[in-house]
Amino acid sequence: MRLKLTIAYDGAHFQGWQSQPQGGTVQDLIETAIETTGSEKVRIHAAGRTDAGVHALGQIAHFDPPSHLTMNPFNWVPAINTKLPHSIRVTACEEVAPDFHSRYDATSKTYLYRLSTLPILPPFDSGRAWHLPRLLNPETLEEALAIFRGTHDFRSFSSLRGNETAETDYVRTITEASFVHTDDGLLLRFTGNGFLYKMVRFLTGAAVNASQGYLRLDDLTDLVESPTDKKSPLCAPADGLTLLKVTY
Amino acid sequence: MRLKLTIAYDGAHFQGWQSQPQGGTVQDLIETAIETTGSEKVRIHAAGRTDAGVHALGQIAHFDPPSHLTMNPFNWVPAINTKLPHSIRVTACEEVAPDFHSRYDATSKTYLYRLSTLPILPPFDSGRAWHLPRLLNPETLEEALAIFRGTHDFRSFSSLRGNETAETDYVRTITEASFVHTDDGLLLRFTGNGFLYKMVRFLTGAAVNASQGYLRLDDLTDLVESPTDKKSPLCAPADGLTLLKVTY
Repeated sequence: MRLKLTIAYDGAHFQGWQSQPQGGTVQDLIETAIETTGSEKVRIHAAGRTDAGVHALGQIAHFDPPSHLTMNPFNWVPAINTKLPHSIRVTACEEVAPDFHSRYDATSKTYLYRLSTLPILPPFDSGRAWHLPRLLNPETLEEALAIFRGTHDFRSFSSLRGNETAETDYVRTITEASFVHTDDGLLLRFTGNGFLYKMVRFLTGAAVNASQGYLRLDDLTDLVESPTDKKSPLCAPADGLTLLKVTY
Repeated sequence: MRLKLTIAYDGAHFQGWQSQPQGGTVQDLIETAIETTGSEKVRIHAAGRTDAGVHALGQIAHFDPPSHLTMNPFNWVPAINTKLPHSIRVTACEEVAPDFHSRYDATSKTYLYRLSTLPILPPFDSGRAWHLPRLLNPETLEEALAIFRGTHDFRSFSSLRGNETAETDYVRTITEASFVHTDDGLLLRFTGNGFLYKMVRFLTGAAVNASQGYLRLDDLTDLVESPTDKKSPLCAPADGLTLLKVTY
């Protein structure tokens, strides 16, 4: 049996999703919680391996529970949650086809990026927003986001993972790059068929740079349309980024 | 010169307001931040010594800056904030009369208490709300809060600090005890001329108990109108409590 988990976490407390030898990542904690219930080693696979500090509201992961456990999938939600810190919550569990894969089967992902423009960042937003008290121009922000929409080679808006080859494909399609005004600033929203390593943070950093007058829109267009190994100058901090949902 | 600070903090990170020998409380951290700026020992005095886990949006404190420093009061805000963790922020600083006292001059305080009634507490609300997925009756909650309003001996709704005497006055006047529905639950609001130790948490605990059918309103009325050393049965957790503002 294969199960699909929906997971929310406050990334400020963890060294990212992906398992580390020293443990303590989101993946490590959920695997341990499942193993405590089923008394067998398990491996869970996430749709997106979020970095340290990045949050999730709708992370998706799949795993195959130990075959001797015949629990209703629904009952895995409290079973896992009772063994997790409160800053990680499984919000749903459902049975899926035995060949379902959380990462390879995803057709799109949506990320939110939160900017606080208040003069002083409230303590409750520490680690949960990028603090930008300096004025930014919303019209230029919109123009910058429009440049990202569509299918482009986004190599200038990514960090190297170290496993890139000559065949690495940097082309992604962004179907949504928009923002709304909020009580305390702006909320950016990105949807695409996939994102390169740190890509949402590079896109946000470039759009913010443009909206503050530090990057010309023509230069931004060049980075998108004539990709070279030249990187976009600013990677936004992890704090403001949330994986909102994964679509299949 | 006497200065009045307005302070916000996320109480989940600290062992309360009041200075402790081992340091690390909100008071300790602010005093150290001021001392780093002025190179003299200072003592700050808060309107309310919030407990471990209790938050503040409008805590008030006063102090006398070292006399050799002739900074504009406004400039103390960034000077202190740069030396504080992000989970504490000074939001305002203004000069007050030399005899102003943050605690003795306060005419009223307002606290908020946040209840989340969602089935699963979102990780971002961990430490910031009391999770009550079990149904509660809003009409009974309102009736319970109405019992608190007015001038009463609230000894049944407080913890002992250990310094009580036969002359200790337990009478307080509650001018506001109300709630509103929110996206994820309820937000209670209490205003009074003063609150006993843990009083808002005892009031909240009793009102919730009543609204869930665990405490009869008649018994609650008895606790308010015929005070004995009998304590109200439930002290709500610190997580949901915020000192909103202090009025002078």
